[in-house]
Amino acid sequence: MPTSLSDLKDALAPIEDLKSAAAVLSWDQETYMPEGGAEARARQIATLKTMAHERFVTDEVGALLDRAETAVEAGDASAVEADLVRVTQRAYDRARKLPASLVSAFSQAASRGQTAWKQARANDDFDHFAPHLKELVDLTVQKAEALGYDTERYDVLLDEYEPGMPTSTVVDTFADLREELVPIVEAIADQPAPNDAMLHGTFPADAQRAFGEQVIADFGYDFDCGRQDLSAHPFTTSFGIRDVRLTTRFDEAFLPSGLFSTLHEAGHGLYEQGIAPELARTPLAEGASLGIHESQSRLYENMVGRSRPFWQHYYGDLQEVFPEALAGVPGADFYRAINRVEPSLIRVEADEVTYNLHIMLRFELERALVQEDLAVDDLPAAWNDRMASYLGVTPNSDANGVLQDVHWSFGAIGYFPTYALGTLMSAQIDDALRQDLPDLDAQMASGQFDALLQWLRERIHQYGRRLDAPELLKQATGQPLDAGPWLNYVQKKYSAIYPDLQAQRVL
Amino acid sequence: MPTSLSDLKDALAPIEDLKSAAAVLSWDQETYMPEGGAEARARQIATLKTMAHERFVTDEVGALLDRAETAVEAGDASAVEADLVRVTQRAYDRARKLPASLVSAFSQAASRGQTAWKQARANDDFDHFAPHLKELVDLTVQKAEALGYDTERYDVLLDEYEPGMPTSTVVDTFADLREELVPIVEAIADQPAPNDAMLHGTFPADAQRAFGEQVIADFGYDFDCGRQDLSAHPFTTSFGIRDVRLTTRFDEAFLPSGLFSTLHEAGHGLYEQGIAPELARTPLAEGASLGIHESQSRLYENMVGRSRPFWQHYYGDLQEVFPEALAGVPGADFYRAINRVEPSLIRVEADEVTYNLHIMLRFELERALVQEDLAVDDLPAAWNDRMASYLGVTPNSDANGVLQDVHWSFGAIGYFPTYALGTLMSAQIDDALRQDLPDLDAQMASGQFDALLQWLRERIHQYGRRLDAPELLKQATGQPLDAGPWLNYVQKKYSAIYPDLQAQRVL
Repeated sequence: MPTSLSDLKDALAPIEDLKSAAAVLSWDQETYMPEGGAEARARQIATLKTMAHERFVTDEVGALLDRAETAVEAGDASAVEADLVRVTQRAYDRARKLPASLVSAFSQAASRGQTAWKQARANDDFDHFAPHLKELVDLTVQKAEALGYDTERYDVLLDEYEPGMPTSTVVDTFADLREELVPIVEAIADQPAPNDAMLHGTFPADAQRAFGEQVIADFGYDFDCGRQDLSAHPFTTSFGIRDVRLTTRFDEAFLPSGLFSTLHEAGHGLYEQGIAPELARTPLAEGASLGIHESQSRLYENMVGRSRPFWQHYYGDLQEVFPEALAGVPGADFYRAINRVEPSLIRVEADEVTYNLHIMLRFELERALVQEDLAVDDLPAAWNDRMASYLGVTPNSDANGVLQDVHWSFGAIGYFPTYALGTLMSAQIDDALRQDLPDLDAQMASGQFDALLQWLRERIHQYGRRLDAPELLKQATGQPLDAGPWLNYVQKKYSAIYPDLQAQRVL
Repeated sequence: MPTSLSDLKDALAPIEDLKSAAAVLSWDQETYMPEGGAEARARQIATLKTMAHERFVTDEVGALLDRAETAVEAGDASAVEADLVRVTQRAYDRARKLPASLVSAFSQAASRGQTAWKQARANDDFDHFAPHLKELVDLTVQKAEALGYDTERYDVLLDEYEPGMPTSTVVDTFADLREELVPIVEAIADQPAPNDAMLHGTFPADAQRAFGEQVIADFGYDFDCGRQDLSAHPFTTSFGIRDVRLTTRFDEAFLPSGLFSTLHEAGHGLYEQGIAPELARTPLAEGASLGIHESQSRLYENMVGRSRPFWQHYYGDLQEVFPEALAGVPGADFYRAINRVEPSLIRVEADEVTYNLHIMLRFELERALVQEDLAVDDLPAAWNDRMASYLGVTPNSDANGVLQDVHWSFGAIGYFPTYALGTLMSAQIDDALRQDLPDLDAQMASGQFDALLQWLRERIHQYGRRLDAPELLKQATGQPLDAGPWLNYVQKKYSAIYPDLQAQRVL
């Protein structure tokens, strides 16, 4: 390795350590921290993140990058090193463009915004949150202007979460999606929903946990390099490729909540555990984008965890764990129940079919906000209108409407579409891997998930952040982003559950 | 507050955040971290500690200290601020005296030493550890020489853990202690030991935990600002005054192990939770010394937790929790059993009477090592000789002898005496507080611990690191360090359990 590259890595490694340390502190904050620790913890995390930022944007790192780039151009670097330099240079340029005053103003507004949002949601009082959201939108506009963009402000905001993905691609893809999905949801809503009474019962948390952990161990999640804990909102976090942690929460009265969140987070965790060890302690040791990340979680949650073959293998076990609720329930009924579709108000409770509509709505509204085509004061009405037209339901309150999600309260604009992008990608990836693994259903039906994980490791996981999502997707599936495969998946799967759906779309 | 002082505090606060973050990472390492995380975690902690050190020893901090000192001299600072400047200046001078090359060499030798020690202990192979210990002793000598000292090298090593306490005081105090304690232990060893069969049985960990946590909540430990988790070796750590964590471990076959470790760590935790909030995020927000810290843990473990009045209140509850083991056992028998004295080989398993002899031995040997009066190769023989003369037992192996403790393996020389100093101080403090709380036994017998905690908060806890141990002890008890009160306590308490002991000492 040329000195210039090892010098760069030596400079980046402690910055990665600071970020990992901040991640440990955040994980603890959400899992074990006593409430008295909150104030000091917020300061500690802020200090670590500030130091990581300060160490990164120095002239010295800039000079190291220049020298490393020269080595890359001279052909003195490996392919991984070339990717490291490219990805780091992009992050460096971006970080240097943001004035410290804006970073600080944003961070303070985000902190105030979250506090105000919590109160506003609790009191169903959008007006209390509105001035904070206005400030955050204003600062987001300033951020986009400082970073610069070719076509529209949203491009550079989305780029933070989904590098290399232009807004226009999202717009086009979502247009295709909306056109077909809205009628599908309408058709489903017109039909009788499967009975899911057996999912409401008594499901002790310990038993849920043991069952879920057995399943994800079967998936290949390595508990020697990770663990699962409880938190109010499930998440996955990594402190290094060999320490990737999941969290979940259990509703003892409703089985799917904890079970599918465990499978979902395991998809994220398998991704992080599968990154090539040589990328450790560099900026490449994370997922390519939030969309790719979500494709892995959705794949394990839905394509695997809500599939017939999966339950062919596991339903007997589950019945043994919860005989009171499930002993007399046929597997086919259970399968239909966990795939029940119902347009509803709350994104995080939505089924896999309606979920994307919740996302499209948020994307359209936040894009309009930063384009200054929509005023914050008009947001609740716009929200409710779109809920009615996309999902056929109207929020009974802003708390169950525009105030339901935390993201905007800390200025995360550009984040929402990645949920839907990931869902679409999951179907594209599922199609591609089934070409290589034609008997995957049979494997799943006998509890075999090794070939699946092997495929994902080879095609997706190992690359970490080396490739941007569009490139990685193309390399893994041969196709660019496309809503078609997911619509086919939905059509095919749900036609078997909602027979009248067959008329909706020709496969 | 003068600007010079607020500038100093602003410079120190992020350094404290780094140290707190390192403490969170260490806590996680010992409690929840999966084994795969070990390698990355070691680097992360090293990065945080290195950054904290680097930020502290800058010329800028030196200049801020100079300006703050000027403000103190001009009378422009509060008493707390004056203490902050004095304590920080001392730490700064110390840190600046150590060359970076020595710090780095020490840190690497410590890391290798711990690994070698683990292997050596597992294989009972002192020779494998000896070269590492030689290197660590040599580096410790270099450290002492770099830091400088008036009388002997050990002074400046002890000062790291017990600021303001000269070696000569320890030597004199331990001489007093040894003279009286060795005959006491001999006299006890000649008498029949109380039957402790009821302590060996089946004690489910959950029940032990619930009982212990109820007791320490009664003591005043605040679970909103702390928690108790499991680790291989119990410890207490603080991430801020409002987040102070304890760990323990339970032996389901032997009750005292987990119970008394919970009470012991709670003593440490109560101290950290009682530090004045105004000291938060400064170098004053920790205990005055390891000795003072240990005085608090020993007081709650022994003076409270192994006392008759304490068990008058709790024994009925304990019998209800563990009826199988304790239902027919009279409280008086239980009390004698938990106070059984038995000379033994292993420090961490020693009873409160023999414990100090284990410490004195270590102090004498490590002092001789850094004085270069004892060679590492002669250490095992010296260890075994002293064990025989102080405790009347001889190790059957180096693993159960000179290799039993981790401290020397990472170069912690100067640490051991603080355990015994704390034990002696606990009796001095117990005497002093009983003068103000003459009915303390009656309070404990009715489960009242508020007045006790209030006294400790006022006299000890609130000061944090503002006063050095000798000064704090004098202020709280009116007396300098003295082995007499502890010897009186032992004589009085154990005469009731071992009747022949009465002849040993006139109270």
